[in-house]
Amino acid sequence: MKLTVVGGGSTYTPELVDGFARLRDTLPIEELVLVDPAEDRLELVGGLARRIFAKQGHGGRIVTTSDLDAGVDGADAVLLQLRVGGQAARQQDETWPLECGCVGQETTGAGGLAKALRTVPVVLDIAERVRRGNPRAWIIDFTNPVGIVTRALLQAGHRAVGLCNVAIGFQRKFAALLGTAPADVHLAHVGLNHLTWETGVRLGGPEGENVLPKLLAEHGEAIADDVRLPRPLLDRLGVVPSYYLRYYYAHDEVVRELRTKPSRAAEVAAMERELLAMYGDPALDEKPALLAKRGGAFYSEAAVDLAAALLGGGGSPYQVVNALNRGTLPFLPDDAVIEVQAAVGPAGPVPLPVPDLDPLFTGLIANVTAYEDLALEAALRGGRDRVFRALLAHPLIGQYAYADALTDQLIAHNREHLAWA
Amino acid sequence: MKLTVVGGGSTYTPELVDGFARLRDTLPIEELVLVDPAEDRLELVGGLARRIFAKQGHGGRIVTTSDLDAGVDGADAVLLQLRVGGQAARQQDETWPLECGCVGQETTGAGGLAKALRTVPVVLDIAERVRRGNPRAWIIDFTNPVGIVTRALLQAGHRAVGLCNVAIGFQRKFAALLGTAPADVHLAHVGLNHLTWETGVRLGGPEGENVLPKLLAEHGEAIADDVRLPRPLLDRLGVVPSYYLRYYYAHDEVVRELRTKPSRAAEVAAMERELLAMYGDPALDEKPALLAKRGGAFYSEAAVDLAAALLGGGGSPYQVVNALNRGTLPFLPDDAVIEVQAAVGPAGPVPLPVPDLDPLFTGLIANVTAYEDLALEAALRGGRDRVFRALLAHPLIGQYAYADALTDQLIAHNREHLAWA
Amino acid sequence: MKLTVVGGGSTYTPELVDGFARLRDTLPIEELVLVDPAEDRLELVGGLARRIFAKQGHGGRIVTTSDLDAGVDGADAVLLQLRVGGQAARQQDETWPLECGCVGQETTGAGGLAKALRTVPVVLDIAERVRRGNPRAWIIDFTNPVGIVTRALLQAGHRAVGLCNVAIGFQRKFAALLGTAPADVHLAHVGLNHLTWETGVRLGGPEGENVLPKLLAEHGEAIADDVRLPRPLLDRLGVVPSYYLRYYYAHDEVVRELRTKPSRAAEVAAMERELLAMYGDPALDEKPALLAKRGGAFYSEAAVDLAAALLGGGGSPYQVVNALNRGTLPFLPDDAVIEVQAAVGPAGPVPLPVPDLDPLFTGLIANVTAYEDLALEAALRGGRDRVFRALLAHPLIGQYAYADALTDQLIAHNREHLAWA
Amino acid sequence: MKLTVVGGGSTYTPELVDGFARLRDTLPIEELVLVDPAEDRLELVGGLARRIFAKQGHGGRIVTTSDLDAGVDGADAVLLQLRVGGQAARQQDETWPLECGCVGQETTGAGGLAKALRTVPVVLDIAERVRRGNPRAWIIDFTNPVGIVTRALLQAGHRAVGLCNVAIGFQRKFAALLGTAPADVHLAHVGLNHLTWETGVRLGGPEGENVLPKLLAEHGEAIADDVRLPRPLLDRLGVVPSYYLRYYYAHDEVVRELRTKPSRAAEVAAMERELLAMYGDPALDEKPALLAKRGGAFYSEAAVDLAAALLGGGGSPYQVVNALNRGTLPFLPDDAVIEVQAAVGPAGPVPLPVPDLDPLFTGLIANVTAYEDLALEAALRGGRDRVFRALLAHPLIGQYAYADALTDQLIAHNREHLAWA
Repeated sequence: MKLTVVGGGSTYTPELVDGFARLRDTLPIEELVLVDPAEDRLELVGGLARRIFAKQGHGGRIVTTSDLDAGVDGADAVLLQLRVGGQAARQQDETWPLECGCVGQETTGAGGLAKALRTVPVVLDIAERVRRGNPRAWIIDFTNPVGIVTRALLQAGHRAVGLCNVAIGFQRKFAALLGTAPADVHLAHVGLNHLTWETGVRLGGPEGENVLPKLLAEHGEAIADDVRLPRPLLDRLGVVPSYYLRYYYAHDEVVRELRTKPSRAAEVAAMERELLAMYGDPALDEKPALLAKRGGAFYSEAAVDLAAALLGGGGSPYQVVNALNRGTLPFLPDDAVIEVQAAVGPAGPVPLPVPDLDPLFTGLIANVTAYEDLALEAALRGGRDRVFRALLAHPLIGQYAYADALTDQLIAHNREHLAWA
Repeated sequence: MKLTVVGGGSTYTPELVDGFARLRDTLPIEELVLVDPAEDRLELVGGLARRIFAKQGHGGRIVTTSDLDAGVDGADAVLLQLRVGGQAARQQDETWPLECGCVGQETTGAGGLAKALRTVPVVLDIAERVRRGNPRAWIIDFTNPVGIVTRALLQAGHRAVGLCNVAIGFQRKFAALLGTAPADVHLAHVGLNHLTWETGVRLGGPEGENVLPKLLAEHGEAIADDVRLPRPLLDRLGVVPSYYLRYYYAHDEVVRELRTKPSRAAEVAAMERELLAMYGDPALDEKPALLAKRGGAFYSEAAVDLAAALLGGGGSPYQVVNALNRGTLPFLPDDAVIEVQAAVGPAGPVPLPVPDLDPLFTGLIANVTAYEDLALEAALRGGRDRVFRALLAHPLIGQYAYADALTDQLIAHNREHLAWA
Repeated sequence: MKLTVVGGGSTYTPELVDGFARLRDTLPIEELVLVDPAEDRLELVGGLARRIFAKQGHGGRIVTTSDLDAGVDGADAVLLQLRVGGQAARQQDETWPLECGCVGQETTGAGGLAKALRTVPVVLDIAERVRRGNPRAWIIDFTNPVGIVTRALLQAGHRAVGLCNVAIGFQRKFAALLGTAPADVHLAHVGLNHLTWETGVRLGGPEGENVLPKLLAEHGEAIADDVRLPRPLLDRLGVVPSYYLRYYYAHDEVVRELRTKPSRAAEVAAMERELLAMYGDPALDEKPALLAKRGGAFYSEAAVDLAAALLGGGGSPYQVVNALNRGTLPFLPDDAVIEVQAAVGPAGPVPLPVPDLDPLFTGLIANVTAYEDLALEAALRGGRDRVFRALLAHPLIGQYAYADALTDQLIAHNREHLAWA
Repeated sequence: MKLTVVGGGSTYTPELVDGFARLRDTLPIEELVLVDPAEDRLELVGGLARRIFAKQGHGGRIVTTSDLDAGVDGADAVLLQLRVGGQAARQQDETWPLECGCVGQETTGAGGLAKALRTVPVVLDIAERVRRGNPRAWIIDFTNPVGIVTRALLQAGHRAVGLCNVAIGFQRKFAALLGTAPADVHLAHVGLNHLTWETGVRLGGPEGENVLPKLLAEHGEAIADDVRLPRPLLDRLGVVPSYYLRYYYAHDEVVRELRTKPSRAAEVAAMERELLAMYGDPALDEKPALLAKRGGAFYSEAAVDLAAALLGGGGSPYQVVNALNRGTLPFLPDDAVIEVQAAVGPAGPVPLPVPDLDPLFTGLIANVTAYEDLALEAALRGGRDRVFRALLAHPLIGQYAYADALTDQLIAHNREHLAWA
């Protein structure tokens, strides 16, 4: 089995490699290819990756290359974890929207649209090369905004699944609170990428006992802290919104906060410099503790599970992924991409049935899906007017004056990444 | 034919009566009943109504009564134009939401929810009496929020149609700009009550030439002034949003404006005092010019047309009404109430097919429909939590802190009208 | 108003012309064009038509022509009543299927498929010429099989409505039995052309009292005789199937009958010779009594009503027509053509909502719709295999051996009318 | 793990037990309970079952009992393979329909309806006891007619899956023809129980290469022989219909055949007597060769695979089962039961997406689904009229005279099994 990571030079890669090493029984990788145009960085990361495999006695071969076509040729699965424009572009996404009183974030709102516009054309080009290298290869997309990017891939006919670590994070968190094994915890997780709610927490399987009410009663404070939302909100809704719902339910508060804090991009950039320095140390043969602060917890577990299931070699039968709606949420188009539990196997993800959803969630999901539709149009076809329309459609923007000003800002700050601008 | 107006003591009634007199060929009323609990006011209005009929030579009988059951008994059609709590309650709806930075308005946002909560139980009680008085009677609802009230009526199995004057206003305005007869102008009008867009303007019928692009090119400025939105917005969308979309597309600007101006309720209350004084003058036998400033232009034309079509006596074959969705907008539930062109006749309104809508509109429509669902739940079943949920679901609110504070305010200001509070 | 009848040389035309004369208030025809390639016949029919108009004092002009393009140029509405291959082809349709033990009929079963294959290409060619002559013209199709022909027209983007006289026949019959005016009788009529059931009979309008149970109780025998089905069948179903359901519910009995009787085509051909002889008599200035036996009763009433409504000049608000399904029967594709009550006006027919149907009807309707789909494919694209597939799909055939033999027969008997054979 | 077989006294049981013994790694049964009211027979079968387990070294315990409640108490999975009325009732089902020229068969047509009427109430009573014994138990239904029985179970809220051996039979047959392992062959299998078509045969998984065209080209004769249909039919359709489609595509031929041959029931009854005599021999410790002629090949493999997947212990990720439609075939109601490939796991079966189906199949599937709807109504609520309606709706009957006569016959031959008759 050959597995390729596009964006393999990321400082996050050792986390992934550590997971591949630990979980080799589930996913027996023979060749792991790290592809990245940044060769220096790739060598640092690749060196550490090889030492991790060696230390853990993993017999797989690790290849590093800046040649994308060679890297994806014959791959069984390709993981996308690239970042077009790097932390510098992210820094922009987190900054200019604040001037209009709108949240600055790299997946939600105006910043998320900017990232979608930069990313979609690049990912589609990569996917074409993957297809040429192996028409049966599966593409696993971590690259944000995962919902829009996955929709772009599926719409172009690629074999793609979108993956996010929000669900696995909740699973681990809830398992710890309940004192049980993560595999025992089955989430009723529903919505769009970065717009999800846990509407049930079942023990033992998708039809097991729902312990969410008990969990909220006994650990409501800890969970509310974790998602940084008021506990009474969780109690009144009877569900657990993901951390990203904070950008909606506490929008103005978040804006005030972001205006006074250093950007997350700046933090991450500093941490990355430090990490790369560590990776250069030939004595280091495990992921450093600092890496845990970089984010992306449990991504490697989720990725291994998903790749194993898609390639027919095991993995959990049900996994939370980003996949075609196909009637699962009946108020959305069949070709929308949703984030839900799915039966995953060589036929790809097949969403489990979702019970009727509260209008409190359907309205927002439908609204953001409409935005994503326009965002994808703007990413594929470009043009100032399409950008304006997507911004006006976003429920966190919605006003003419803001959409107009943000259009100018978005284009001004991303001109080098937008072929049409 | 017997037609009853519930809320017949409104100062607006002479406008309606003037229409009935002018359009008696379309709608040959034999008995017109004005019902109102405010007997003094009813006598003033009823007196003028009789003088208007007399002057115009209309042979119909006008009855005034405060006895609802008697007034609706045997009526063929019943018009609802009541206002629970009067202008005083409206004054509240327009004021307290502003404190949270949210728009203060009697049909949209938190104020609209307050009005729905006050109105729905009263209207359902009236409708039950109408049904007892004549199970085949048609109920025409003008009472705001028309979308939610009509949904309440239909859900309870009543023969009801919701009516608003936004569409007929556009029709007259566009006819004037085009120099043609209003009957020649067919609007492609779509959305929910007070959340509509004119997506086409066709001459001669529903499949005639679309002159909207020409209209925008030649009269864009006048139209934009009329709906009080920036002209570039209209040009970029290629449609004409109704005036009520201003609460969305220019929300913060409207809030700033409302904070510095006297409330509309106060204006109307002053005007009403002046009008009632005029109505008392036995020499007055036509609607006074001042009435035109009170709002509700062309309501009488629209109401006559609708009643005539429902009762099988003519009227325009296609009319803009509030009716069950039943698959017309495929992204909404079948039992949502939408505002569109419909073929109207004794079978009630049957919506015309609507071409695929731009996601720019579908997202917002779906979101507000979800709010209306929760608003109706709150109106029917009461309870602080249901009020909170409806407020949180409203796209103009959406944040926990505001929804929480507005819940308190709404209940505090409307306690006397809420049985459960 | 210019109205054109394609197939105007039919012996049936005087019936139609008599209706136009009687109903001129509803449909004020200025120019009536009869188009037919059979010039001799056209002159006989045209002559009588002019005498009928003259006698009844109708001021409209009657034009006869064999030039189709000239005839349809500038027409407001075009009626199609042609028969490709004439009574000779019909004679075949009624004969060869019997050899396989299958019903021989010109609209149902193998004979109906043969007629569809001969007719669809000719009608599509005519429709193209109509569109060139006036892109806003309405096409009213009487030509059988009306369901398949209308679907072909609508699929090609034409402004077309299919019309059949089954519903108006029931309306007149039931009105007579009830002793009321036809306009008072509103049918709940549902299904596909020549596959319909009357599931309700309402007085005064689409929501009036349902007198069907009473009608069956009091006049069950007469109604059963009329549709030639056993009375207990009507009583057990609680509905009235159309006469054409006899080909299903009493298939084998019909086959036995048809094998021993002269074909309907032969009867009609004889009658036509007699009628044409009469038409040549310059003293004749009204439709002869014999014409009533030719079939097609009340077609002129239905056609006048439909044309008047489509052209915006009145007509009944609700009429039974063949129109796009668009979700009305939720178990059929949106683009199927169904026969139901519709609100008819210048926007074309908009079907009224149909309550949930008994599976006893839905199964057969779905099956025949699937056949019609394949029949249309065969008519549009030709080929022995497509013919075979349509025959195998027909619920009255369904067996390999019969479908195979009938394919050979159909092609052998229709070779001159099938471009691909 | 406790597994219970209701109808465990069937002569078929040794086949099942042999499978459980061979496949114990996939399904580690600790206790196998055989429940049957026929105690003598149960002892013969139970004795052989124990000798089979012993010979193969299976450590599980085998219990025999006539006490249903005890037998299902605490079971993890319950297999239903009962036959109400035994071979004697089957003999009837195969005989009286022939008198009306209709096929006599125990799952299709009038005989199948008789079996449904006898079976559904009994199975629902058993299922209630299963639920009382363990609310999480899975019910696997082999009992015919599997489609209707499974629908009855699901409609009553049971955790049930229907299973048939048609698909696994094709899989094995095709694997043998292709010279590959059965697990390598993935069928695109679609329709209703006993009304299915193989529309594709893919190697390696649900998205592997489709070798059906090659299979038909090289082995068309053998496959056609196997399903007893004409080879040209398979070639023209490009699919492989199941053997049961013969009752449709070759109905009249089958009727002629059945009229001259001894009934299958008589054959099976003779064979059963012989088998029971063998089972009594204490030296017999394996399934006898004669059992292979009894039918039901590969049922044990399919049952083990299904139970293992449902209980979370492995099994193939995709299996052909009878499950709720829920939008998979969009032309059927969501609550219809269809037979397709599904992802099977502890959440039950989730059907894989099915590409658009040819109208040649959809029409018949929709028609039979409507029949099944009425058949279930008749089974649940009884009454002569409901029986008549189901028979009239069946596409193999469809005529009034036959439906009427068959109603009488069905009731006369099954009176002792019909509580209402």
